[in-house]
Amino acid sequence: MNYIEIIGFVAAILTTSAFLPQVYKTWKTKDVSGLSLPMLVIFFVGIIAWLVYGFYKNSPSMIMANSITLISAFLLIYFKLKYSKK
Amino acid sequence: MNYIEIIGFVAAILTTSAFLPQVYKTWKTKDVSGLSLPMLVIFFVGIIAWLVYGFYKNSPSMIMANSITLISAFLLIYFKLKYSKK
Repeated sequence: MNYIEIIGFVAAILTTSAFLPQVYKTWKTKDVSGLSLPMLVIFFVGIIAWLVYGFYKNSPSMIMANSITLISAFLLIYFKLKYSKK
Repeated sequence: MNYIEIIGFVAAILTTSAFLPQVYKTWKTKDVSGLSLPMLVIFFVGIIAWLVYGFYKNSPSMIMANSITLISAFLLIYFKLKYSKK
């Protein structure tokens, strides 16, 4: 692994780490009032595009980061749909 | 511009678009209670790392997306510090 990918993995760890507390907080509090469904869906589609881009660019760090973020975004959409019904 | 960069730019537009309403909402409401300063700082440093990575990968879409997100993250940190004092 070259040093460019090390920078990429540091970036991946930092940005995904910053995102996970939001998922955890939403899961625990079930408070989805501050989350916008259209915004989450736009974000989700955007992450899919970044993932495709990461594959084309042969970027392991982008693939890793966007895979984790895709799951996070999916969970937030799921929570939003589930807890908004109440 | 090749079709890979088109995917990248679509990704860039979608993910940055999803982030901007948060900045606008925080600016208007001055409600920073839901924002965690350590999380924002970790995210900010992560975006700097992605920006550096984007330059090394010669990726115009990564450079564009991360520059905009860097400004957004900076503004959120600024709002957090400014409005938390009240």
